[in-house]
Amino acid sequence: MLKLYYGLGTCALASHIALEESGADYVAERLDLKANQQNSPDYLAVNPKGRVPALATDKGVITETPAILMYIAQSFPKAKLAPFDDPFTFAQAESFNSYICSGMHIAHAHRMRGRRWASEESSFEDMRRKVPENIRAGFDLIETKMMRGPWVMGEAYSICDPYLFTIAGWAKSDSVDIADFPKVADHYRRMKERPAVQKVLAQYKA
Amino acid sequence: MLKLYYGLGTCALASHIALEESGADYVAERLDLKANQQNSPDYLAVNPKGRVPALATDKGVITETPAILMYIAQSFPKAKLAPFDDPFTFAQAESFNSYICSGMHIAHAHRMRGRRWASEESSFEDMRRKVPENIRAGFDLIETKMMRGPWVMGEAYSICDPYLFTIAGWAKSDSVDIADFPKVADHYRRMKERPAVQKVLAQYKA
Ligand SMILES: N[C@@H](CCC(=O)N[C@@H](CS)C(=O)NCC(=O)O)C(=O)O
Ligand SMILES: N[C@@H](CCC(=O)N[C@@H](CS)C(=O)NCC(=O)O)C(=O)O
Repeated sequence: MLKLYYGLGTCALASHIALEESGADYVAERLDLKANQQNSPDYLAVNPKGRVPALATDKGVITETPAILMYIAQSFPKAKLAPFDDPFTFAQAESFNSYICSGMHIAHAHRMRGRRWASEESSFEDMRRKVPENIRAGFDLIETKMMRGPWVMGEAYSICDPYLFTIAGWAKSDSVDIADFPKVADHYRRMKERPAVQKVLAQYKA
Repeated sequence: MLKLYYGLGTCALASHIALEESGADYVAERLDLKANQQNSPDYLAVNPKGRVPALATDKGVITETPAILMYIAQSFPKAKLAPFDDPFTFAQAESFNSYICSGMHIAHAHRMRGRRWASEESSFEDMRRKVPENIRAGFDLIETKMMRGPWVMGEAYSICDPYLFTIAGWAKSDSVDIADFPKVADHYRRMKERPAVQKVLAQYKA
């Protein structure tokens, strides 16, 4: 059975929702990131990067959100979570997820994880000050150039949607109001209505 | 016909080599990044992110290296550049590329592009000081945990290989000696022997 390792308030939410949407049989194990459980010897044996998410399969462990999302989509084709048949549309979905991962998520990480890329308190403060501007620019790009609507890839719900939902859920903490981005805000509201999303979020409150 | 927009010394090299390996009919247009051509109105109409690479296809433009690489692999299946048949192996390839994109490339970008994430000269200096440590940790992970060898995915050459080659080519400028990572160093040497790689590199010298 698939096993997802996740933490509260993390990007693992995207994979968690995708698993729920896929109909897969899976369990989810919560790590306590505040207690630094992601760097415990037990977890480093699962994911030597010391990050969540990680998805344990019977063939081995998969890390990196875009890869986990794609694996879920390809393994459970009935859920139609990615357009595997058409190389161009597939590449657009992959491009969206890659931008979230290397653009938006990285921009966000500079608020709390500055220590990854610098050492001085003054640098962390400087980085934190720039986060809202970068997150805003990212949502602007998504709103005006990337999102087809009503879902990220148009009429078809896909693995891009829980990923957008995840970073939209961080916006407030990054001092950005998604109400300024009508398509993103509407997407966020519709995501919250989906049973799969409600089921996952209910677990997070427990 | 496909058209690749690239710049010298950039991550576009990975897509360029993959195109050459794929047998695709394509042209490549060089942008002068020192003259900030990536932010010219003409290019922003191609890629509103103002970055390279971008791949123009007859259906539209694809951005983000992992997406372009996947598009090339899927569009030219005879070149067998990605393991599309097996979800787990495919996810491992995607995971590798996602880590290069969101991990290694981002670590590298903090040397020259600190302005993306901060505003003060002192922060840029602080970021630059941390780059060798992060790049070294990334290559260590690749060497000991990620690379199957002789190619990234094992016996089969794939879209992961030109991407590893690209960041390995940056290591020296990041004050890291890839000779410290025998599998990565050997991979770099073997990549340079490939006709497709030689053909692309020859163009870059012109
Ligand atoms: N590129 C990775 C990033 C994973 C990542 O950085 N996860 C964060 C949570 S959002 C984490 O585990 N942070 C813990 C830490 O930095 O110690 C992905 O997309 O999965
Ligand atoms: N995530 C993107 C990153 C693209 C990127 O940042 N490209 C750099 C060159 S390596 C660039 O265009 N820099 C120009 C600039 O920052 O103005 C990808 O993987 O393609």
